[in-house]
Amino acid sequence: MKAHQVALVGAGRMGGLHARNVVASSRFRLAAVADHNEGLAKQLGNELGASVRSYEQLLADPDIEAVLVASSTSSHLENVLLAVRAGKAVFCEKPLSLNADTLADALPDIEASVRPVFVAFNRRFDPHLGELKRQLDAGVIGRLETLHIVNHDPAMPHADFIPKSGGLFKDFTIHDFDTAGWLVGEEFTELYAAGACLIDPEIGSLGDIDTAKLVLKSAGGKICLISNSRRTGYGYDQRVELFGSAGALRVDNVHQTSVSRVGEAGTTGAPFPYSFAERYAEAYRNELDHFADVLDGRASPSSGPRDSLRVLRLADAAERSLNSGGPVTLIPGEY
Amino acid sequence: MKAHQVALVGAGRMGGLHARNVVASSRFRLAAVADHNEGLAKQLGNELGASVRSYEQLLADPDIEAVLVASSTSSHLENVLLAVRAGKAVFCEKPLSLNADTLADALPDIEASVRPVFVAFNRRFDPHLGELKRQLDAGVIGRLETLHIVNHDPAMPHADFIPKSGGLFKDFTIHDFDTAGWLVGEEFTELYAAGACLIDPEIGSLGDIDTAKLVLKSAGGKICLISNSRRTGYGYDQRVELFGSAGALRVDNVHQTSVSRVGEAGTTGAPFPYSFAERYAEAYRNELDHFADVLDGRASPSSGPRDSLRVLRLADAAERSLNSGGPVTLIPGEY
Amino acid sequence: MKAHQVALVGAGRMGGLHARNVVASSRFRLAAVADHNEGLAKQLGNELGASVRSYEQLLADPDIEAVLVASSTSSHLENVLLAVRAGKAVFCEKPLSLNADTLADALPDIEASVRPVFVAFNRRFDPHLGELKRQLDAGVIGRLETLHIVNHDPAMPHADFIPKSGGLFKDFTIHDFDTAGWLVGEEFTELYAAGACLIDPEIGSLGDIDTAKLVLKSAGGKICLISNSRRTGYGYDQRVELFGSAGALRVDNVHQTSVSRVGEAGTTGAPFPYSFAERYAEAYRNELDHFADVLDGRASPSSGPRDSLRVLRLADAAERSLNSGGPVTLIPGEY
Amino acid sequence: MKAHQVALVGAGRMGGLHARNVVASSRFRLAAVADHNEGLAKQLGNELGASVRSYEQLLADPDIEAVLVASSTSSHLENVLLAVRAGKAVFCEKPLSLNADTLADALPDIEASVRPVFVAFNRRFDPHLGELKRQLDAGVIGRLETLHIVNHDPAMPHADFIPKSGGLFKDFTIHDFDTAGWLVGEEFTELYAAGACLIDPEIGSLGDIDTAKLVLKSAGGKICLISNSRRTGYGYDQRVELFGSAGALRVDNVHQTSVSRVGEAGTTGAPFPYSFAERYAEAYRNELDHFADVLDGRASPSSGPRDSLRVLRLADAAERSLNSGGPVTLIPGEY
Repeated sequence: MKAHQVALVGAGRMGGLHARNVVASSRFRLAAVADHNEGLAKQLGNELGASVRSYEQLLADPDIEAVLVASSTSSHLENVLLAVRAGKAVFCEKPLSLNADTLADALPDIEASVRPVFVAFNRRFDPHLGELKRQLDAGVIGRLETLHIVNHDPAMPHADFIPKSGGLFKDFTIHDFDTAGWLVGEEFTELYAAGACLIDPEIGSLGDIDTAKLVLKSAGGKICLISNSRRTGYGYDQRVELFGSAGALRVDNVHQTSVSRVGEAGTTGAPFPYSFAERYAEAYRNELDHFADVLDGRASPSSGPRDSLRVLRLADAAERSLNSGGPVTLIPGEY
Repeated sequence: MKAHQVALVGAGRMGGLHARNVVASSRFRLAAVADHNEGLAKQLGNELGASVRSYEQLLADPDIEAVLVASSTSSHLENVLLAVRAGKAVFCEKPLSLNADTLADALPDIEASVRPVFVAFNRRFDPHLGELKRQLDAGVIGRLETLHIVNHDPAMPHADFIPKSGGLFKDFTIHDFDTAGWLVGEEFTELYAAGACLIDPEIGSLGDIDTAKLVLKSAGGKICLISNSRRTGYGYDQRVELFGSAGALRVDNVHQTSVSRVGEAGTTGAPFPYSFAERYAEAYRNELDHFADVLDGRASPSSGPRDSLRVLRLADAAERSLNSGGPVTLIPGEY
Repeated sequence: MKAHQVALVGAGRMGGLHARNVVASSRFRLAAVADHNEGLAKQLGNELGASVRSYEQLLADPDIEAVLVASSTSSHLENVLLAVRAGKAVFCEKPLSLNADTLADALPDIEASVRPVFVAFNRRFDPHLGELKRQLDAGVIGRLETLHIVNHDPAMPHADFIPKSGGLFKDFTIHDFDTAGWLVGEEFTELYAAGACLIDPEIGSLGDIDTAKLVLKSAGGKICLISNSRRTGYGYDQRVELFGSAGALRVDNVHQTSVSRVGEAGTTGAPFPYSFAERYAEAYRNELDHFADVLDGRASPSSGPRDSLRVLRLADAAERSLNSGGPVTLIPGEY
Repeated sequence: MKAHQVALVGAGRMGGLHARNVVASSRFRLAAVADHNEGLAKQLGNELGASVRSYEQLLADPDIEAVLVASSTSSHLENVLLAVRAGKAVFCEKPLSLNADTLADALPDIEASVRPVFVAFNRRFDPHLGELKRQLDAGVIGRLETLHIVNHDPAMPHADFIPKSGGLFKDFTIHDFDTAGWLVGEEFTELYAAGACLIDPEIGSLGDIDTAKLVLKSAGGKICLISNSRRTGYGYDQRVELFGSAGALRVDNVHQTSVSRVGEAGTTGAPFPYSFAERYAEAYRNELDHFADVLDGRASPSSGPRDSLRVLRLADAAERSLNSGGPVTLIPGEY
């Protein structure tokens, strides 16, 4: 099978991660790299043997089949729209936008695309969560009743990231909204968010929070707890637990190695992966593989612009709940 | 040291459990057993070599130093008041009452007692939770930020227990309110309760719920999640997890044995204890030992009537939150 | 049921442990304590409310039904023989003797006893090992093929204990010989012992070893590995692993509590129990309960003098193997 | 950096595994594939876009820098010698030979090679065992005293593999000899092997065993236990445990995922990897990466022909021990 020629826009951290996976896959060829920051583009292009061009040039190249959008979050939507208009297939790093109304306005244009538009949520491609979903769907725990998600980051982001992050809910909880919806398989009808600035007062002075606990209710009455923290101090804490009518299922943290040490203080297992890039390395490879399947016509995107809008509306609802202090009612189909 | 002569009122399941621990302890002597159901009292008294008398007779016996109140919940408060008036020390099974106002009215009389009144919350005496508290207090995880409590029962209670249980929050969550307050060391200022009847519709038709998730905020901004279920299907699921500025601490479930089996399906560890009596066996022995320390004058009760009122007010607030659908503000000192 | 009146000879560490269990059990009454060291006897007798008498006086008392022999190892056999001659039932702490030939000579006299003689091997009464045995016998792993035993002590004994210990094999490995035989259910036909003095040269200068690895073959071809160390530095390491035609079964170490801590270095579980008294506390209570069943006529001793001789012969074989450097052939029925 | 052009001889299972890793690595280019079985060579060559040639043609091609030898074990040595004579660098799958004397005779020729000859033992490149070694070398458990290796295969090999396998010790235990030597860092001075045919009598009728337990002593007095089985029934059981003067270190089995299920039977973790290809996938990639470092002149081979001879001599000694029934003395430097 011929490799798909793709180009990358956005040569930062996420762009580099995806581009390296592209290069390591026999199903793709990385044709070109674009970035407003030309130095960044050149460095990555040189490393990976890809040409450096402007985004306009890329889009005009008929040999390029698809575009990977990994530019700054604020430019995701514009870059996706440009790619769609140029007739390219799109792989877009989440989130598609930080503004739900803007995204809603753009949705018809994106959905009119003749080529697939894939918005990648890495959790769905994690082999551990994938196995959890398979067992849930196979009825291993009967009827799902409630679920708990722990999503705690190892360390605070740089303070200058906060203002452009969209806030904790849009930057971080958005993953959990997607995971929860994917597992529950129902729309959510109510959301309550408790949040606080417990780790670093600077976060608070920037109008954001660093800690949150959320309760969501689904149309079918299932209840979901989400726990978020910006800093564990001990690595990336990533757990999901499902409680059903016939038992429980969980994805526990993975460990860097299977080495443990026994000493006077007890038995110490290896630390968790420290970064998302390490914890979800396989998920990033898998989502790219899924995109190859999509381009090959063997699959449709597991999540697209509408899913992006859905989680964005949930993040907005979480903000409203936080501000009002009470739960927010969600109208299925309208978020 | 001379053994303390005690008498038991209430020869049911909890009474039997405490009475057997009394008999097995060299620090106590079980003098007598009372129960409205004389047959029950005789059976237990015969088994344990204790005389069977009416509660009035017990209270009139000057040789009996203390009374263990393990009668039906609705009679706890009255039996405690009678014991206090008779000048007896009291060990009362939780909860002291299902009605906060009634308890508040009775509080002055109880607190005027010259002899100690101990309301036993078993979690505080569990060696696992005790070690958690010790490490928390020792600063092992720095400043506590949030905590998660999982308290799930193995199996639904009999339907005829539900109406006299006081409801999920007073019967069950009350333990978690006590544990949370004990660990956080601060008053709670807000409580949000989501509840549902997901397991058995009969619970719902009786006006109760079988599943709940609660979010509590403390005066110092700490956030506490509580998860309750009336039925796991796999044993008693009892976990607490603390997240702090310098790491996390948890009490995981204990297992019936350390035996595990490796087969094609994976590695299977032994089940959790199925009943509270099994899971907290050591806690029940320890709380009795604490009561002996109290009677010896070497300790004051770790929890008393006022703590009982506090958790009862929290259970009331949880009901109000459930009914209103929104969070409830708590005024420290008034609950 | 009436409590059995028993007396203790030997008021040292093991005597105290058994005597306290006797006192805590409703099935026994501790009538008297004897010890050559009268101070020791008085201290324990006072603590437990038992009279202090000479061993001869005890044996002459017709109200005393059974004797617990927990004196120094070198006097076990003599004390058992005296008790047997006095018509007492006997509970004897292992090992019955350190000299196989002497024990063999005495065996007919002991076995002629009208009253039961129980030699207690604590492992058989451990609930974890008991569950392992139950699952093995239930065929959970099919046909047993090989087994591994790890038996490592937390810390070196005092050097002055070594000369009277009988050496590592008789003092320590003897437990594993019993466990292995109990699990395998076959006689052993060959034994190879590798030993060394790796921890403390003083042990070597006393003619003993502190580390050993043994390989035993059973009549049915099963192979058993035993690992012994006098010092882990991290608590009592006690594991058994069975490999069968349909999977594996293991008893892992137990932990002091179910508390774990997550920090930068990884996740640290609670330490193992440090002493045998802590690790096998329940086993000691259970073996006493078994003895009560024996006295009640509801059970026969799970292990007796002949089992003691068997493991002693295996310890002798291990010494011969260590000295010769090669494996030793064992003749079933002759050890 | 320019990619190294390599060719593969042997297009079977191991050849395919290495060739796919070569293709996925940016540090190599797979130029050609050779195999006596031309159909096999063509299939793999087509899949991976490599030309298919005879081994002689490969060796004559000056553009090919190195040869990967993954042909049948019996042809390893000859193919390596041919490659050495052709001036190629060599990556050879273990074992280099099944006959120690033949290998000893060939050693001078191989060691005279101007280009590096790397014999790959996958365990040394496993990230889990690598971390174990790092911690051991860093003194985490003080002075190493003893070690236990469990190396159990999931399922019996095909019976027709047995005669050409070289027997259990040369085919299987050889990995453990290498691992043990690598960890202990000392020559072995004595070896005792117990073996049996407990799984499948056909193995016995072919003159081989399916189960073995070995005890090795090192020059410095360390003792090593090795446990081998040809069939667990539950996946690839791969563990190493080190006991030292300051604690213990272990590599436990890895699990397919971090999913676990809680049900009435207990908590079931995910199975172990079933095949060596899965368990050591990362090790195979790492050993290739190491070979790239060797070709780049940045490393010398972590193990070479002399290490191969050493483990082969140990396998011979194990066979002698098994046949004689007693331990075998090893002369350091002569094995």
